Amino acid sequence: MDDSLARHNTGLMPYLVAASQILGVAALAVTGTWLSQYRGGFSWDGPQQFNVHPICMVLGMVFLCGDALLVYRVFRHESKKATKILHGALHMLALIISVVGIIAVFQFHKKKDIPDMYSLHSWLGITTFTLYILQWICGFVMFFVPGIAFAYKSRFKPLHVFLGLSLLVSTIATCLLGLTEKLLFALPEEYSKLPAEGVLCNTLGLLLVAFGLVMSYILTRDEWRRPPLPEEQALSIDFKTLTEGESPNEP
Amino acid sequence: MDDSLARHNTGLMPYLVAASQILGVAALAVTGTWLSQYRGGFSWDGPQQFNVHPICMVLGMVFLCGDALLVYRVFRHESKKATKILHGALHMLALIISVVGIIAVFQFHKKKDIPDMYSLHSWLGITTFTLYILQWICGFVMFFVPGIAFAYKSRFKPLHVFLGLSLLVSTIATCLLGLTEKLLFALPEEYSKLPAEGVLCNTLGLLLVAFGLVMSYILTRDEWRRPPLPEEQALSIDFKTLTEGESPNEP
Repeated sequence: MDDSLARHNTGLMPYLVAASQILGVAALAVTGTWLSQYRGGFSWDGPQQFNVHPICMVLGMVFLCGDALLVYRVFRHESKKATKILHGALHMLALIISVVGIIAVFQFHKKKDIPDMYSLHSWLGITTFTLYILQWICGFVMFFVPGIAFAYKSRFKPLHVFLGLSLLVSTIATCLLGLTEKLLFALPEEYSKLPAEGVLCNTLGLLLVAFGLVMSYILTRDEWRRPPLPEEQALSIDFKTLTEGESPNEP
Repeated sequence: MDDSLARHNTGLMPYLVAASQILGVAALAVTGTWLSQYRGGFSWDGPQQFNVHPICMVLGMVFLCGDALLVYRVFRHESKKATKILHGALHMLALIISVVGIIAVFQFHKKKDIPDMYSLHSWLGITTFTLYILQWICGFVMFFVPGIAFAYKSRFKPLHVFLGLSLLVSTIATCLLGLTEKLLFALPEEYSKLPAEGVLCNTLGLLLVAFGLVMSYILTRDEWRRPPLPEEQALSIDFKTLTEGESPNEP
């Protein structure tokens, strides 16, 4: 990496990372407030089981997944192994919490005899979650299982990075659809008069979009990418030589 | 740009560009079919004025805006000036068509006494469109008005590029919200039984997401960026020297 490029404008990153965390925590707080104040709070066996779904999806699939992507920027000068373990651990937590959220809504629908999987929210949600599982499996095999050739890893990585951010954006779109559905079901007459709950949920929607926007900006800046440490660079060249038969001295 | 990087994997781009066009045209065709077959077709003064809104937004803000971003990849070996004019012309067309679509829905609401601007769809839509207008003005001043220093242009460009793709993604999210709203208003009981119209609109939603995904992939590949032509590179260095006082021979 060009050294002048690496230094360029990096000063803005900490502020944007802070902004992303404030937006993420604000979105979680607004989700919790909305479900507690207006939708009767949380329960697993009671009629509030539905409410477990939105809070789990915002916590797992938005906030934790977002932060899992961010670790490669925030800890860009720490060891790659530690960063990778943190990335995996955050995604493991995100996966568990999301699965709880998905079980909650399917169980709730079953108890209440509400049809499943008819809305655009559910279609986009299940597509996104299926791709997330696939991304999990491929990412685990490629980057955690030892013995995968460096050439395969480096070819897969751009796709893994692209799909990671795309899935975050797609999850946020799914959340917005879920919010719209819930408001139209819960406030069929009142929503158009824009009551406090409507304002709160619309604001939540914009907070989620702002979180996605700041995350996307941080994650797509070339100059904020994790620079390879000297020993990793040497190792990479070594791997490359072994797997592709290239000489490290070649242009 | 590293020459090996420029050649790497470029072979896939034409297929993805073709896929994006097929997805975009398919989304437009499905939107037209939906509104004609299930929602009574189009009119400006009649009760079908609403239908002008979705078709104009999908054509203007999704398809034409998407293609306006794509010209820098598709015509990456043509003159920069011609490409820039095409980019501007497509955005001008997109702007006109979108304004017609926005006027249509506000006029329709006024005639039918339907409240405006209460839903998340409208909040996100108006935010996106306002930012699009700002992007238009800033882009025009920076890249079409002569006499802007190269240093300012090159600092603004990454933000312009990032905001361009972000606005496309945000527009698609707004379309999905609009689709969900319309289905829940038009088919309050039937949607959950997943009638043909529901399947068609959900499919339209996924087509729009797929269009956004393919576009985002093409537009974020470093190796598919427009390489500067030799005369442009010389001109850039010349500008840089004039505006920043740097020597072209400096590292």
